Amino acid sequence: MSSKQQYYFEDMQEGMEASFSKTVTEADLVLFAGVTGDLNPVHIDAEFAANSMFKQRIAHGMLSAGFISTVFGTRLPGPGCIYVSQNLRFRAPVFIGDTVTARVKVTGLKPEKNMVLFETACSVGGKDVVTGDAVIMVPRREQA
Amino acid sequence: MSSKQQYYFEDMQEGMEASFSKTVTEADLVLFAGVTGDLNPVHIDAEFAANSMFKQRIAHGMLSAGFISTVFGTRLPGPGCIYVSQNLRFRAPVFIGDTVTARVKVTGLKPEKNMVLFETACSVGGKDVVTGDAVIMVPRREQA
Amino acid sequence: MSSKQQYYFEDMQEGMEASFSKTVTEADLVLFAGVTGDLNPVHIDAEFAANSMFKQRIAHGMLSAGFISTVFGTRLPGPGCIYVSQNLRFRAPVFIGDTVTARVKVTGLKPEKNMVLFETACSVGGKDVVTGDAVIMVPRREQA
Amino acid sequence: MSSKQQYYFEDMQEGMEASFSKTVTEADLVLFAGVTGDLNPVHIDAEFAANSMFKQRIAHGMLSAGFISTVFGTRLPGPGCIYVSQNLRFRAPVFIGDTVTARVKVTGLKPEKNMVLFETACSVGGKDVVTGDAVIMVPRREQA
Repeated sequence: MSSKQQYYFEDMQEGMEASFSKTVTEADLVLFAGVTGDLNPVHIDAEFAANSMFKQRIAHGMLSAGFISTVFGTRLPGPGCIYVSQNLRFRAPVFIGDTVTARVKVTGLKPEKNMVLFETACSVGGKDVVTGDAVIMVPRREQA
Repeated sequence: MSSKQQYYFEDMQEGMEASFSKTVTEADLVLFAGVTGDLNPVHIDAEFAANSMFKQRIAHGMLSAGFISTVFGTRLPGPGCIYVSQNLRFRAPVFIGDTVTARVKVTGLKPEKNMVLFETACSVGGKDVVTGDAVIMVPRREQA
Repeated sequence: MSSKQQYYFEDMQEGMEASFSKTVTEADLVLFAGVTGDLNPVHIDAEFAANSMFKQRIAHGMLSAGFISTVFGTRLPGPGCIYVSQNLRFRAPVFIGDTVTARVKVTGLKPEKNMVLFETACSVGGKDVVTGDAVIMVPRREQA
Repeated sequence: MSSKQQYYFEDMQEGMEASFSKTVTEADLVLFAGVTGDLNPVHIDAEFAANSMFKQRIAHGMLSAGFISTVFGTRLPGPGCIYVSQNLRFRAPVFIGDTVTARVKVTGLKPEKNMVLFETACSVGGKDVVTGDAVIMVPRREQA
């Protein structure tokens, strides 16, 4: 199994699912802040965060969104697919130490455009923290 | 404007704008892949990418999305606001060396919910690479 | 397909192969040096390296070795396996910009100990830079 | 000893020893996973790890191996030496918070090839976690 393996459009079926889990660490917040420039003190300033609504630093919502991208880009459909769109609704904060599980599930197919519709969600301890949906274009086997 | 200063809901008006620009480097791709786990070879394998649709490594779409979050969290409205939702449409690839400018613009206000509607876009050289819209909840001055 | 999927000992057969490829960047050298403490100037000092045998900075041999571990831990046999031993022979330098492909191939099975023997190699442009062999313990399905 | 100073082959004697110690942090695991791509959930998913054999996240074995390389590349023999081979046997897990000490000891010399043989080990609290041996080529003073 090489990193270049993928699902083609012909392989995709409604109901297929995949997930990726990662424990969010302080280091992840520091690095994500550095790379994106999102230095909002709720993410990197423990003193400011202690006086904020959530009483502690929270992870960037786009970090959780990034885990959804990880599932698409490395598991289902995997390398070769094209990210067309992603709708995100941020429902609850993610704290340092939380293990986030990003899940995607095929909800529909548009064969005329080689597009696959997905329901997407990130959860912590079974509770949704991000919900949404996405559209991915997946190449056909004969075109690859 | 200190990192703790912010706009309150009462300060927000239709048409207000802010932006953030960053040149995307190879190091950004390496770190973003590491933090999110998105090791899709289009991001980290130059040989694979040379044979892909875009002929070179491309940045993670969620990295550009992260720049939008940077504008909201640090510039407009700034610290204290709450990210409710973000819709993203990925329109064109971002390559190593591209300078991405993320822009947000207020398109509407929902005073009964303290919510502000934004149009969001990331562009490279004047060309949109990500478009979308977002909803941000902004605390009122009297509540802060 | 979840991150927790794996091959069990019963699934392993001689000749099975897997690989992982990554382009080695300057950022990888900086980060690997920082995490391991291996600040040998051949890795992080471009001026020193220019006067060294290889005329430029070279990647840490253990970074390439780490890619072998990536194949074992994430692809074949995947999560749940136990790294028993790894022999490494460093044959040629890896430079910034090189795309390293780590490959592992099953060469034998020791059913009485649930151990799998692998041939391991890292190559750049088809040329071996690290060769060696490894032993991995893989749980049986009934024990999992 | 500056980073560019080194031992030459003529300086090497059986029994010489050197070591390097580092406390392994959660940030080290996050960064090592990012650089190598080894996202095995035993390293980055605290919930998965809690249900695994070791009951918590463990460090990558190659991180400890990297500390051995640190000793060779920065202390004994130091810059200028060439890593020929390294055999590793992983004996026990390393957990977040453990302080790993990598030690190398000269066990033999091959003057005709300018090669030095080493016994290598990483330990935590006096208990070996990685054992093995290595061969290093060390330039002679007259050749340098």
